[in-house]
Amino acid sequence: MANSAWSETMLQLLRRMNNFYLPASGRSRCLRFEINEAQVGWIPPHVAPLLTRYPEVFSPPLEGAVALRRSLDSSEKRSEAVDAVLRTMRREGAFTCLKGWRDENYSVMPAFSDPPLMWMERAATSLFGVKRYGVHINGYTVGDGGEVRMWLARRSLTKQTYPGLLDNVAAGGIAAGVGIKHTLVKECEEEACIPAAIAAKARPVANVSYTYEDEDGVFAESQFVFDLELPLEFEPRAGDGEVQDFQLLPVDEVKRLLATDDFKPNCAMVALDFLIRHSFIDPDAEPFYQEMVAGLHQTL
Amino acid sequence: MANSAWSETMLQLLRRMNNFYLPASGRSRCLRFEINEAQVGWIPPHVAPLLTRYPEVFSPPLEGAVALRRSLDSSEKRSEAVDAVLRTMRREGAFTCLKGWRDENYSVMPAFSDPPLMWMERAATSLFGVKRYGVHINGYTVGDGGEVRMWLARRSLTKQTYPGLLDNVAAGGIAAGVGIKHTLVKECEEEACIPAAIAAKARPVANVSYTYEDEDGVFAESQFVFDLELPLEFEPRAGDGEVQDFQLLPVDEVKRLLATDDFKPNCAMVALDFLIRHSFIDPDAEPFYQEMVAGLHQTL
Repeated sequence: MANSAWSETMLQLLRRMNNFYLPASGRSRCLRFEINEAQVGWIPPHVAPLLTRYPEVFSPPLEGAVALRRSLDSSEKRSEAVDAVLRTMRREGAFTCLKGWRDENYSVMPAFSDPPLMWMERAATSLFGVKRYGVHINGYTVGDGGEVRMWLARRSLTKQTYPGLLDNVAAGGIAAGVGIKHTLVKECEEEACIPAAIAAKARPVANVSYTYEDEDGVFAESQFVFDLELPLEFEPRAGDGEVQDFQLLPVDEVKRLLATDDFKPNCAMVALDFLIRHSFIDPDAEPFYQEMVAGLHQTL
Repeated sequence: MANSAWSETMLQLLRRMNNFYLPASGRSRCLRFEINEAQVGWIPPHVAPLLTRYPEVFSPPLEGAVALRRSLDSSEKRSEAVDAVLRTMRREGAFTCLKGWRDENYSVMPAFSDPPLMWMERAATSLFGVKRYGVHINGYTVGDGGEVRMWLARRSLTKQTYPGLLDNVAAGGIAAGVGIKHTLVKECEEEACIPAAIAAKARPVANVSYTYEDEDGVFAESQFVFDLELPLEFEPRAGDGEVQDFQLLPVDEVKRLLATDDFKPNCAMVALDFLIRHSFIDPDAEPFYQEMVAGLHQTL
C-alpha cells in the first residue's frame, strides 16, 4: 500500500472516531448533562424525552441542559436514583445498549482530576455522553537484532462488542475508585495471564482520546496508554474467555492491519500511537503525520 | 513542588499557547485568508484594514474572508505580489514584527500535505495567521545506569525573540521546498555543531501543535519532534551565535524548569512531550495528564 493511501485510511479512522466534533454531528442537538451546574456529559436527542418521565431525578430541559435534581445532594443519592431509572429503562427495553449491562460502575465527574459526583453503570454511559476512562497496553518484544514485534489479542466471537476483531494485548475501563496502574495490572492478569511482576514494568507513555457518536449515544473516551516490553520467551494466554488467542506480529504487518476492518477502532488508534512514538512512521513520507497525531488526542 | 501545582502550571502554559481557541480570543474577529477559495490562514483585525490599500493584490473583505486576487494565477505571481506589499509595509514601519525580517521563505498551503500555493517571508506569517512548520530536537543521553539527561540550549541574549531563555538542543523552521529530516540535520549542524552522521540518527517521535495570538498576530505552529540520543562523550557547541551555551541536565531538573519562566514556551512543550513519552510523568500522580497530552496536540 502506498503511504498516501495508508495515511488517508488512518485519517478516515480518526475522523470516524471523532465524528462528534464534525460540523454535521448531532452535538448541537444534544443537551448538556449537568450536576451542580458542572457539565459531566452530553445527552443525545433520542434520550432526553424519556428522562422527563422521572421528574424527581432529572430537571426538565432548560437552556440546553438537563440537570440532576438538587435534592439529590450526595454522590450516593445521585447514583442510586439514576441507577433505579436505568434499571427501569432496561426492563422496559428502552435502549439496546442497556442489554449489555455489566454491573461495572464508572465515576462521573467534570474532569478526571475532579472528585466523582456519582457513579453510573458502564453500559449506560453513552446515553449521557459521560466520559469513560480506560487503560490500553501495547505489549511488544524487541528481538536480538532490535526488531520490534507487537502482541495483539483476537477478541472472542462471543464478546458483545466488536467480536472477533484485533485488540491490544490487554485493556480495560477504569472503574469507580480504582487507580490507573492498578487497573493495568488487573487487566494484564485477567485478559492475558501476564503476571503482576511483569505487568508492573509497563511504562506510562501517552493518552489517546476521542469522541464519537452512533445509534447508542455519545462515546467520549480517554485511554491511558502504557508500553510493556515482554520477555522474548513469554507468551500471553487467554485468561477470562474474552480473548480467542494472541499473535506476535512484525510492526509492518501491524501497520498494514491498521488500515483494514480487522482492528477494533480504538485499539487501532492506540497501536498507531505506538508506531508513531517508536519511529515507525516517517513524517517526510506520510502526508498526514501531523493530522494523525492531532486526531489521536482530541478532547472535549 | 507538589505534583498538582506543577500540573497546574503546565496547564496554564498549554492554555496560553492555545489561547486562540479560547472563547474570549480574537478568533471571531479574524478574517479567513483565502487563496482559490481554500483557507490558508487567519487575518487579525488590526491587519485587515491595511490590506484594502492594495486592491490589486487583496480582494476587499467579503463574508468574513480576504482572498488573493484570482488574477494572481501562479505561486510565483502571488508570492511576488504579496512580498512587494510586505516590503512596503516594512518600509512604512506598519508592523513591529516586520522589523524582524529574515529573508526566509515559508510555504503557504491549506495543509502540510498540499502543494504550496505561494511562499511568504517568515516574519510576516503572523499577520496572516499562516501555519508555520518546524523541527524540534530533544537531545539526550542515557548513562550507564540508565539515567536520562537532556541537553538544553541557552538562547543568545542578542536573539530577537526570547533572548536568554532555554531552548531544545536544536530547532528551526521548515523553509519552502525543504524536507523535514533535511531541516533537522541542517539545524543540528548550524545551531549545535552536531555532525550530520550523528544527527541522522534522530528518530521521528511526535508532532507538537498549538495556536496562540498576541499583539503581532496569530501564530499557528506545528513542530515535528525528533529524539536524538547523543553519545555520552559528545558535547554540543554553539555554532551560529544563536546560542550562548549548552547544559546537560537531569530529567528532574528539566521538569522543574518547565514550570518556570526560564523556558521558551514552545520548547517547554516539546520537552514536556519528551517527559511524557519517556515515562517520567505518572498519570496516577499528575492530575492533568490527559489534559497535558491533549494540549500538546491542538490544531486548527
